[in-house]
Amino acid sequence: MAMVCLSDFEAYAKKHLPKIAWDFFAAGADDCSTRDENILAYKRIHFRPRMLRDVSMMDIRTKLLGTEISFPVGIAPTGFHQLAWPDGEKSTARAAKAMNTCYIASTYSTCTLEEISTAAPGGLRWFQLYIHRNREVAQHLVQQAEALGFQGLVLTADVPYTGKRRDDIRNGFRLPPHMKLKNLEGAFEVCKTSCLDASLTWNDIYWLRSLTHLPIIIKGILTREDAELAVKHAVQGIIVSNHGGRQLDGGPATIDALVEVVKSVQGRVEVYLDGGIRKGSDVLKALALGAKCVFIGRPAIWGLAYKGEEGLQDVLRILQDEFRLSMALAGCASISEIGPHLVQFSKL
Amino acid sequence: MAMVCLSDFEAYAKKHLPKIAWDFFAAGADDCSTRDENILAYKRIHFRPRMLRDVSMMDIRTKLLGTEISFPVGIAPTGFHQLAWPDGEKSTARAAKAMNTCYIASTYSTCTLEEISTAAPGGLRWFQLYIHRNREVAQHLVQQAEALGFQGLVLTADVPYTGKRRDDIRNGFRLPPHMKLKNLEGAFEVCKTSCLDASLTWNDIYWLRSLTHLPIIIKGILTREDAELAVKHAVQGIIVSNHGGRQLDGGPATIDALVEVVKSVQGRVEVYLDGGIRKGSDVLKALALGAKCVFIGRPAIWGLAYKGEEGLQDVLRILQDEFRLSMALAGCASISEIGPHLVQFSKL
Amino acid sequence: MAMVCLSDFEAYAKKHLPKIAWDFFAAGADDCSTRDENILAYKRIHFRPRMLRDVSMMDIRTKLLGTEISFPVGIAPTGFHQLAWPDGEKSTARAAKAMNTCYIASTYSTCTLEEISTAAPGGLRWFQLYIHRNREVAQHLVQQAEALGFQGLVLTADVPYTGKRRDDIRNGFRLPPHMKLKNLEGAFEVCKTSCLDASLTWNDIYWLRSLTHLPIIIKGILTREDAELAVKHAVQGIIVSNHGGRQLDGGPATIDALVEVVKSVQGRVEVYLDGGIRKGSDVLKALALGAKCVFIGRPAIWGLAYKGEEGLQDVLRILQDEFRLSMALAGCASISEIGPHLVQFSKL
Amino acid sequence: MAMVCLSDFEAYAKKHLPKIAWDFFAAGADDCSTRDENILAYKRIHFRPRMLRDVSMMDIRTKLLGTEISFPVGIAPTGFHQLAWPDGEKSTARAAKAMNTCYIASTYSTCTLEEISTAAPGGLRWFQLYIHRNREVAQHLVQQAEALGFQGLVLTADVPYTGKRRDDIRNGFRLPPHMKLKNLEGAFEVCKTSCLDASLTWNDIYWLRSLTHLPIIIKGILTREDAELAVKHAVQGIIVSNHGGRQLDGGPATIDALVEVVKSVQGRVEVYLDGGIRKGSDVLKALALGAKCVFIGRPAIWGLAYKGEEGLQDVLRILQDEFRLSMALAGCASISEIGPHLVQFSKL
Repeated sequence: MAMVCLSDFEAYAKKHLPKIAWDFFAAGADDCSTRDENILAYKRIHFRPRMLRDVSMMDIRTKLLGTEISFPVGIAPTGFHQLAWPDGEKSTARAAKAMNTCYIASTYSTCTLEEISTAAPGGLRWFQLYIHRNREVAQHLVQQAEALGFQGLVLTADVPYTGKRRDDIRNGFRLPPHMKLKNLEGAFEVCKTSCLDASLTWNDIYWLRSLTHLPIIIKGILTREDAELAVKHAVQGIIVSNHGGRQLDGGPATIDALVEVVKSVQGRVEVYLDGGIRKGSDVLKALALGAKCVFIGRPAIWGLAYKGEEGLQDVLRILQDEFRLSMALAGCASISEIGPHLVQFSKL
Repeated sequence: MAMVCLSDFEAYAKKHLPKIAWDFFAAGADDCSTRDENILAYKRIHFRPRMLRDVSMMDIRTKLLGTEISFPVGIAPTGFHQLAWPDGEKSTARAAKAMNTCYIASTYSTCTLEEISTAAPGGLRWFQLYIHRNREVAQHLVQQAEALGFQGLVLTADVPYTGKRRDDIRNGFRLPPHMKLKNLEGAFEVCKTSCLDASLTWNDIYWLRSLTHLPIIIKGILTREDAELAVKHAVQGIIVSNHGGRQLDGGPATIDALVEVVKSVQGRVEVYLDGGIRKGSDVLKALALGAKCVFIGRPAIWGLAYKGEEGLQDVLRILQDEFRLSMALAGCASISEIGPHLVQFSKL
Repeated sequence: MAMVCLSDFEAYAKKHLPKIAWDFFAAGADDCSTRDENILAYKRIHFRPRMLRDVSMMDIRTKLLGTEISFPVGIAPTGFHQLAWPDGEKSTARAAKAMNTCYIASTYSTCTLEEISTAAPGGLRWFQLYIHRNREVAQHLVQQAEALGFQGLVLTADVPYTGKRRDDIRNGFRLPPHMKLKNLEGAFEVCKTSCLDASLTWNDIYWLRSLTHLPIIIKGILTREDAELAVKHAVQGIIVSNHGGRQLDGGPATIDALVEVVKSVQGRVEVYLDGGIRKGSDVLKALALGAKCVFIGRPAIWGLAYKGEEGLQDVLRILQDEFRLSMALAGCASISEIGPHLVQFSKL
Repeated sequence: MAMVCLSDFEAYAKKHLPKIAWDFFAAGADDCSTRDENILAYKRIHFRPRMLRDVSMMDIRTKLLGTEISFPVGIAPTGFHQLAWPDGEKSTARAAKAMNTCYIASTYSTCTLEEISTAAPGGLRWFQLYIHRNREVAQHLVQQAEALGFQGLVLTADVPYTGKRRDDIRNGFRLPPHMKLKNLEGAFEVCKTSCLDASLTWNDIYWLRSLTHLPIIIKGILTREDAELAVKHAVQGIIVSNHGGRQLDGGPATIDALVEVVKSVQGRVEVYLDGGIRKGSDVLKALALGAKCVFIGRPAIWGLAYKGEEGLQDVLRILQDEFRLSMALAGCASISEIGPHLVQFSKL
């Protein structure tokens, strides 16, 4: 079977992963309407492509907080990569480095931050943080990540509690015994999701900042009000995200929320997006609407499930080729030429 | 089979109830478009969830006309509970009391008001009233309900005649011989639905008020004009309802009508809603749009059909857990934090 | 099988009529999108039902150009009734009279006007006229209709040529040899549809008026411009119609066009509608939007196909019952209480 | 099987063409959403048909840049006609001439321009040009086309690179060895699609104009900005096109883009359209919205696949008959009566 587009990887993963693992990665909250909206919303955005512009020399590089990446697609934080491929997050790190893009490693990795770091030295990585009631966990992880050369800290803001994912409940989902949340072992063994700190507020950003020199990116913002608060609390970046539709079902598609957030932020911090990216043209739409970069979650897992590091590189390369082609066909030769004039929301 | 969400109870009930009973409970009028719209309309309302608010201590209690209930979901009046479970409305009353919420018992119960009352002493109950041409029936029932400790009187305003439910006609639906409309036995035996008083008008509210000290809640209001009339006639509450889509097919979804009614009422009386509630997030949407509480009809029947009192408690508990989680994920720790800023109508 | 609603008659007719006849009656032009829109458009109109209004005494009678009918639904002109039932238009006439409503007999009847007249003496009938290139045909038919007591003349304006109905072409549709267009026999034998006068203009209304004392109703108007012209040319009534979607595919649903026509006409002439009426609530919507009466086409055929005169009476009686019930549930006890406040167009 | 409408030819072609050829002609880019939108968009445009206008004498002729054609439908440029019929573009040329309309021959023809010219001497033909990095190719082809009597030069503006058509990749699509891109043989053998000049800009229009006296029509314009540039660079015509949805997926339907382009151009040059035309009424809608003429792509291929020259004539004749009938039923007897008053965009 030829792997031509991301859906091919999805089909492969669905066929080859154990059902319980597939269900876990595919899960959305409740009726999965937000998960599905993330994808459908792109279909309501039309391009206004421009013709006869010199697109013979394409430059699709961009920068994340000043660091260059090969194209504006990174790897969103997702947990439990060993469920998809034996080498787990080590493969993810290698693929991201090979493609010269950013990998946001999750607190819920099945490899240690050190293993991830060692697997692909010099790669651009951010660390995604959950904050547990025992604040020592976060303190330890943040300082470890900084020491290991991670270049950004992504604070997930949308998980005071875990969303209700029906299939996981039906399946009695849990990690197989031979896999571990390796960053939460030993002293922090007890810190499972049920120990997340639901009392977290914006003030805790100050505490977090006191722990590290790393830039702080806040993930899970969907409204102008929260975007304003994020800027006010001096974060360096915002990831517009609904956690892949896995938390509050009924929230907006991220591409729709992006418009509101970008308008509120007015360029004061970088704005990113995850959720629903399935084609290079989706990336172009997100950038046209103001995202600096997008991140892929499930498609990265499908790539791992296909062939580990190599499969994820395939996924990224396809997205990269599609993005470059979409840009060219829309008349843009470089990222700086992309803007809101390129798109319009369908009246339908 | 795991009972994870309300749809699971629906599937169970559809499989296990006799077809004629399932059809009766499921029935909508004509093409069932209003019945189905009640549910679909929620999908057009998106949350605007807020992040990083302290949701570690959740308080989901509210009050119905001053009486505290454990969360803003009560049991809507529906008839013939023995069709779903042998103990009928006695089980319903027990489950509602166990979950500390309000049960609106129907005129068309298959248990007497006294049996209902005795089954769960001290539970919060309202009595739903149909008014027959023989006004003595209503007078008797109202005074009996008051004497038995019912705390509210719900006047159904949308049944001058019964809606046309095709399946009931095809099935020749009628109560099995061993079940009785026990509140209409003896002297009132002849008072069946065909004897409803189609000449009822707003002036009859005054007559009703002369019979009882109980607060009067009017059920079946869908327009601002009628909401205004309800306030003018000094009712204590309004239930926005289209009778589960069983009366006039083509009416609005209740969640859509709620907006108009709430705007008209401007807080002068409490506004409730029934119809289409299937998830905790639906409850949150209704509250965000101004409902003080919602009531469930068919889902309560499914709970009874599953395991009687215990099954209905399961249904209520699931809704309660989902509602609490939705509130937390939307950034609200108590009912008072819920407001219209939490939602927006989809442009689609 | 119980005949509960009009769809039941449709299913019966589809099952029992010869395919070629079913296809002929069911046909729409081209992709049948206008035919289907006629029905779908009703689903986008919501009621705003009013409660607690005395609906114990329902009066659903109305008047067509001054003549009382039992309820605002008549029989639209359709051809070839013998394809549906051996007695053809004679049965139609009897059913309409029995139900005390208006029957618009088609030029393309398989019974003569005289047979129709004799079958149900005293019934309210209008005659639908196609104008052929040989103007003597129209002159003869009009004068015959007037002599036979027909009380109105319906000029079809939307058939300069016959629409393209794919199934009829595929089936090679033609009348079976034992059926005749009896009003076009003898001298007028050659006047088939291919002889329709495509040069007809508004000025020909004057010529038509010179032939008869009957009121002239124009059928097939869909725009405000043509409605204005109709009033200017002193017709007595307008039937908003797209010929059941059988002529220009892509035209508006009649219920949508009605709004524009009613607004333009401002009560100067009566406005009627045909197309898409399948339930009593559809009738109520049309009246709320300004129609004085509606006419049914295909449902009348289904009734004939079921049991001839008796079947058509069943269809009319069901519509009558549904209409009365819808009125009552919307809070109207008489036609005069129906108005635009009863409906709103869905934003969807 | 009766060939009644264009869908019948589509079904025939799908059944009889080799899968690889069918897939090539049917292909859209990525998810094929723009390809499908081209068709769906027509369904959102409703006619406002006018009645009682003399349509007995229909005149559907129009002019393309001053040259009369029998009706406003020409043949859009598509490649590889020998994949559909052995005689390839020679049959296309004969059919177009027989029907007295315009054929735009593609650079990627499987017959030489000379063969095309000889096959149907005197027919109205335009030549569609791709510009390769080796500009001698274009220069040679343009001058050859002019010498052979082609009367217009169509510059394709939307293919700096070829769109991503998944099925072609999966199928490993390439021309069978016995077919050749005959206009690119010999000296120009190497000029395949991969050699297209992606650096083409508006200034190259001046260079093109220096090569030929032929009028230049630019194909692939979708925005007002580019329409303005086209007029500014003195082209004689604009074809609103998205390349049949084969280039940038997510672009607008051409009928939607037409409105924007026509408004911008304000009659300064002729505006045409291709994409999604499947019925005569689609042609009428495009003309009502300002197109001077439309062009058919895939339907022409289906005609060829059915019976070569004869099949394509069938397709054109059906479209012609449908267009004439639609015009008549909308109340227009000649092209000059068609205007924007005839249509409205559905609110849905």
